[in-house]
Amino acid sequence: MSVKDKVAVIGVGYTRFGEHWEKDAEDLLIEAVYEALEDAGVTLQDVQAGWVGIFYDFTGCGGSTVSDILKWFGRPITRVENYCASGMDAFRNACFAVASGAYDVVLACGVEKILDQGSRGLPGIGEIGHPVYGSVSAPGMFALAATRCFHVHGWTREDLALVAVKNHRHGAAHPKAHFRREITVEDALRAPMIAYPLGRYDCCAVSDGAAALILARPEVARTCRHKDDYVLVKANALSVHTMLPMYQPGFDYLGWPATRDAARMAYAEAGIRNPREEISFAEVHDCFTITEILNYEDLGFCEKGEGVRFLREGIPYIDGKLPVNPSGGLKCFGHPIGATGCRMLVEVTKQLQGRADGLQVRDPRLGLAHNLGGAGTTASVTILGRRD
Amino acid sequence: MSVKDKVAVIGVGYTRFGEHWEKDAEDLLIEAVYEALEDAGVTLQDVQAGWVGIFYDFTGCGGSTVSDILKWFGRPITRVENYCASGMDAFRNACFAVASGAYDVVLACGVEKILDQGSRGLPGIGEIGHPVYGSVSAPGMFALAATRCFHVHGWTREDLALVAVKNHRHGAAHPKAHFRREITVEDALRAPMIAYPLGRYDCCAVSDGAAALILARPEVARTCRHKDDYVLVKANALSVHTMLPMYQPGFDYLGWPATRDAARMAYAEAGIRNPREEISFAEVHDCFTITEILNYEDLGFCEKGEGVRFLREGIPYIDGKLPVNPSGGLKCFGHPIGATGCRMLVEVTKQLQGRADGLQVRDPRLGLAHNLGGAGTTASVTILGRRD
Repeated sequence: MSVKDKVAVIGVGYTRFGEHWEKDAEDLLIEAVYEALEDAGVTLQDVQAGWVGIFYDFTGCGGSTVSDILKWFGRPITRVENYCASGMDAFRNACFAVASGAYDVVLACGVEKILDQGSRGLPGIGEIGHPVYGSVSAPGMFALAATRCFHVHGWTREDLALVAVKNHRHGAAHPKAHFRREITVEDALRAPMIAYPLGRYDCCAVSDGAAALILARPEVARTCRHKDDYVLVKANALSVHTMLPMYQPGFDYLGWPATRDAARMAYAEAGIRNPREEISFAEVHDCFTITEILNYEDLGFCEKGEGVRFLREGIPYIDGKLPVNPSGGLKCFGHPIGATGCRMLVEVTKQLQGRADGLQVRDPRLGLAHNLGGAGTTASVTILGRRD
Repeated sequence: MSVKDKVAVIGVGYTRFGEHWEKDAEDLLIEAVYEALEDAGVTLQDVQAGWVGIFYDFTGCGGSTVSDILKWFGRPITRVENYCASGMDAFRNACFAVASGAYDVVLACGVEKILDQGSRGLPGIGEIGHPVYGSVSAPGMFALAATRCFHVHGWTREDLALVAVKNHRHGAAHPKAHFRREITVEDALRAPMIAYPLGRYDCCAVSDGAAALILARPEVARTCRHKDDYVLVKANALSVHTMLPMYQPGFDYLGWPATRDAARMAYAEAGIRNPREEISFAEVHDCFTITEILNYEDLGFCEKGEGVRFLREGIPYIDGKLPVNPSGGLKCFGHPIGATGCRMLVEVTKQLQGRADGLQVRDPRLGLAHNLGGAGTTASVTILGRRD
């Protein structure tokens, strides 16, 4: 019941994330994919199949537009959509295909161009909603968890601000981040309110970007450019819960079952008994500061209710025991939905290879990437490890 | 490089296709999935992961709505989108996951509810198009191939009508078809013109429906209800070409490279040297009558330019040497996009088991299913075979 050690990451690439008014989704995807191909030392002709994570139809890319964009005709290309986990689920399906023996070398990528989403006359975020439940803003949904945690755990807006301060400190050093400056707790607290208690620095931005990974069977990886430092997939889990868990009776607003389930499955697959000791670092879904704190708990990095203490003890900082979002996270990169999961996996790969573009984690062995999508609906947890 | 014989189909189910004004996509999916579960003799709790093919966002189902619809929480569910091949590509990805060893039992399904697509205030078909190429009607696109074939091969509207007559003859016997009556060549020729030379009977309808398959590792299949007659996946190919091949310089309008590539890959995977002799029957993508004729050629059932002769010789009829669309095809079922590929695979499975719901093909051993999506952009070819 596992793809553990059956799939290698042999090349990665990604664009700078941010505002790209002069580029289209097509341009971004080309940039990311060709950087990954060059990193892997293979050509597009060596790649046998592709998966692309895209959330919004209207960003203009499906499987067949990927074919057009890359001038890569005749191969199988699949579009995967799974809310904010679209990119990581594209990677997951690519892994299955390699592990099944169907292909030797494949592409997993994600892209989203949302900043100018209205320019094509196609529907915007506000027009997309569930036919029954309707549409709720993301800050509004996650604010419910924050106020509940304030009530139950006694957390404060200052606790949330610490996440923003940490991630901006990390991201300030990353050449591909959208926001590259440090902020203070005061900056966060003084920022305009978006949905109480979430202010502007508690929310990730809407940015554009693309990311790509080349995967191969380990036997093939051993003949490629990164033959000495390719990275192995250790686990690949996805859990999908109800579309709007926050509206379900019994939901406690103190975490997300989808993340807990995906983490449990991933640790079982990777043979990890104690994630606090065994996971070297993690890129987690910090769409909002409250999300990151609850992710610590849901991923088993600390006990329930201990997320803020975990943060205040300095554990998730770059020089802490378990760095979380050493890249700067969604806080600094924004969240081009289909691209985010793949970007995290690019970061984890480069950290494990000791060539992080931002701050380097010290001697990591196992890195975790996590996406949370919808209203806490769907969660992906992928664990990568060094080949040795 | 193959999933051949690594995946078994252990249960299938599907709704009646047609007008379902009293049902929603949710109702259709539940009906199809529960029929498949009952057929397999397993419960939803036995199923470890799911894939769903849906083309239109606005039909109201994504991976997580599938979770809600089935009250099936915490499992991994992935939405796959690949134009008209969305359902068959969902099946393909499910196959990879089983063949990889990640899961023992999974669900592949597809659904689309388009007849009342405008009722939710979300964008209709006419509003969806490529940002660069714009939008073209499907009959308009396929009419170009028909007129070209008339010019090059001397085919006529009567030749096209023969496809409609054949498929209506087959579909008249199928309890789940949308249109269940035979027609004559005169009926077809006298019908209103849609896009010259394609009249109403040359075009498939927009219908609603859902279909589902339960897949398992063969070791597991041998312990299930269909242990003596489960069906094996022999090949699973997908090819994606340019988004609008018909607008490319050099396109000859006499067939689709995506189908030819997918067929070549599928035959190689299944070890088929001579499809005309080895394939027992096929469900092919007859979105338009001209498409079916060109599919004969692209799938290697006859030589290029010989499609009409193949048809006039009676070969693709139910009692012919290589029955094509014994179910009645898209002509009689309509084309609820995400559902169609899965429906074809349900039909092929039941034919191979000798329990077709419509006309039964005599003693089939290998059955082929084929989707063509977009403007001939993407093609899927799946080959299933009897376990013995």
